[in-house]
Amino acid sequence: MDILIVIMDGISGRPTSSLNGLTSLQAADTPNLDRAADKGVSGIMDPISPGVRPGSDTSHLSLVGYNPYSTYTGRGPFEAAGVGIDVKEGDIAFRCNFATKKDGKIVDRRAGRINETSELSKAIQRETKEIDGIKVIFRESTGHRGALVLRGEGLSSRITGSDPKKPGLPTKKIKAIDPVGDKTAEIANKFIEKAESVLENHPHNKKRIEDGLPPANTVLLRGVGEVPSVVPIQDKHGLDSAIISGTGLMKGIGKLIGMDVIEVEGATGSKDSNTMNKARETIRQLKENEKDFVLLHLKGGDEAGHDGDGAAKIQYIEEKIEPVIDYLLKEIEDTLLVLTADHSTPLDVKDHSGDPVPITIVGDGVRVDDVNFFNENTYKGGLLRIKGKDLMPICLDLTNKCNKYGA
Amino acid sequence: MDILIVIMDGISGRPTSSLNGLTSLQAADTPNLDRAADKGVSGIMDPISPGVRPGSDTSHLSLVGYNPYSTYTGRGPFEAAGVGIDVKEGDIAFRCNFATKKDGKIVDRRAGRINETSELSKAIQRETKEIDGIKVIFRESTGHRGALVLRGEGLSSRITGSDPKKPGLPTKKIKAIDPVGDKTAEIANKFIEKAESVLENHPHNKKRIEDGLPPANTVLLRGVGEVPSVVPIQDKHGLDSAIISGTGLMKGIGKLIGMDVIEVEGATGSKDSNTMNKARETIRQLKENEKDFVLLHLKGGDEAGHDGDGAAKIQYIEEKIEPVIDYLLKEIEDTLLVLTADHSTPLDVKDHSGDPVPITIVGDGVRVDDVNFFNENTYKGGLLRIKGKDLMPICLDLTNKCNKYGA
Repeated sequence: MDILIVIMDGISGRPTSSLNGLTSLQAADTPNLDRAADKGVSGIMDPISPGVRPGSDTSHLSLVGYNPYSTYTGRGPFEAAGVGIDVKEGDIAFRCNFATKKDGKIVDRRAGRINETSELSKAIQRETKEIDGIKVIFRESTGHRGALVLRGEGLSSRITGSDPKKPGLPTKKIKAIDPVGDKTAEIANKFIEKAESVLENHPHNKKRIEDGLPPANTVLLRGVGEVPSVVPIQDKHGLDSAIISGTGLMKGIGKLIGMDVIEVEGATGSKDSNTMNKARETIRQLKENEKDFVLLHLKGGDEAGHDGDGAAKIQYIEEKIEPVIDYLLKEIEDTLLVLTADHSTPLDVKDHSGDPVPITIVGDGVRVDDVNFFNENTYKGGLLRIKGKDLMPICLDLTNKCNKYGA
Repeated sequence: MDILIVIMDGISGRPTSSLNGLTSLQAADTPNLDRAADKGVSGIMDPISPGVRPGSDTSHLSLVGYNPYSTYTGRGPFEAAGVGIDVKEGDIAFRCNFATKKDGKIVDRRAGRINETSELSKAIQRETKEIDGIKVIFRESTGHRGALVLRGEGLSSRITGSDPKKPGLPTKKIKAIDPVGDKTAEIANKFIEKAESVLENHPHNKKRIEDGLPPANTVLLRGVGEVPSVVPIQDKHGLDSAIISGTGLMKGIGKLIGMDVIEVEGATGSKDSNTMNKARETIRQLKENEKDFVLLHLKGGDEAGHDGDGAAKIQYIEEKIEPVIDYLLKEIEDTLLVLTADHSTPLDVKDHSGDPVPITIVGDGVRVDDVNFFNENTYKGGLLRIKGKDLMPICLDLTNKCNKYGA
């Protein structure tokens, strides 16, 4: 039996007066999610621990069996892995923003949400291959984003970032938090200086100024972290694994723990994503590529939750998730199907909350319960209340893939 | 949103034949507790861990987010803080009993439940300000109780107590459990000797003997502990906090973790307490004093449980708790209300038990469930079964006061 975990990012919430005291999941028409619950065993799950507000990154790590408190060293390493940099244990990694600086101050933290930075990034990389004997890797990501990796001896993530967080302030000088970070801070500051001198006279920026657009004339360094030591998922769980996600951060997590990161046409990591393409690719990975485990990440509900947009969240559930569940229920064979979320994103909070998420597990051998709906009330089901770290052991057990502990 | 946690000490129990198979909470008429449950989300909670029989002290520590296994070093430090001694990290503290000694043996461990010891205590303190270079602080508490603090270099709590536990035996000599306690044991024994010489000829005791009462002619030292290092609750949770309790031990816990300890007229820490005064002060602390978090401790149900007195427990619930809940439900605004207990005190056990306690949380955004009663059967609610250590994270999450872990 294979394992398919569908993570509907931020899909659960809290009851809200804007939906007559319901949550988005309760207000949406969800015959296919409900059908799955009817066929399976349900419950609620604290992705990390009761009341803890997870990021999508820390939660995903927990759900696939990695302790986020030891594995998650910052967002940088996961972003860098997500843009395709082959990060190595001990690398120091940052997520970056292309930004616009004027008279020494950051006037736009996203350089007018610049969309195309590959030429700029290549130019930066050409001039910054090495600084003070340290290898430097810089690569563009989607939109105004990029990632930076420093590799070599004597580096440390005990440094601050350069992002002033709001416009109108100068770039912050990167500083060591303790002396072990001195060298890294110096190199990071030198990188920014070199990047700025490359960007200042780059034709792409001259063109942007001519077009009345803010030039991408500096790079902000954020989310620094040291690439952690990670046991690959194949060794940890014995599963040949793939992740299907439109989100760079999730791809980075998948890559860092050794999953195949599958690119799907039309997967945007947003509400407009082609979720059916992702579903078809999921089935193909299980059936044709013979993956043991696929994690399918569907992001749009979280985005709508962050916007506090109930109509958009309901529409995403009904139009982007429901057809996927219908298709998966029809197409999966000999596969344990898990439907859940990485955290709640209530409309009134407009951010992640620490509320538990619903979970339903469908497959041969599960102890089917009375729950025939998929929403925040699945606490009435046979799983009761579990933790995110319990999910992989439960899946491995239900698919008879785990070793007996004892005799 | 503010947080109000009402801890009804020992309010839950076990079914008993003396109440036709019901618990006190089930047998009592509780329309207001039930109304709270109807408006909220309920469950059961293990204050420390399933089956662990908590003290009120260790449980309260757990419920406000402190690990009792590292914070609770003995009852002494909390009693000493509770009587108003400004204890400092590293102090060695004892709870004390005034007792009656005759022919070298303890004949009454509570000196006839003596009620007034302030003159005796002042006399002791005058003669014991310093022993062998160590600062000594002695203060009376309610009834026959007192507290002793030793402060200085080279002290340790690795010593025994002096209480023989039952009458007819001599005071136990305080001994070091390992050599690091030698000095402290010596000073503690010298303190007892000096206290006895002060008490022997004190006019207050002569008067007692004339009146046919047992003299308070010695002091028993119990519950030794080293004052722990504690992160103040304001730093830990970012909450300006107050505790309202009639019990010295609870006040001590509140004081030690940096809560404002609010004195309320008529709060006795017993069944006769003026609980409505405490409720009114609770609302005043939230509304006028703008506290972020108030812990309201109601003790009487536990006392009735220790006495095995079902009628008294039911009467306390109906007459002392119910009006408080009615008042709080009417008066609270923009506040998350938690109703729970610190442990169960079953009538047939006449002491604390490790059974879980009911919990109901009421407030905007909670996932209201079907439970419309407040008793041991709240396990049917949406919280299912949580631990005491989860309570503060859940409250901080529901009031949107906690940081996101990750991105």
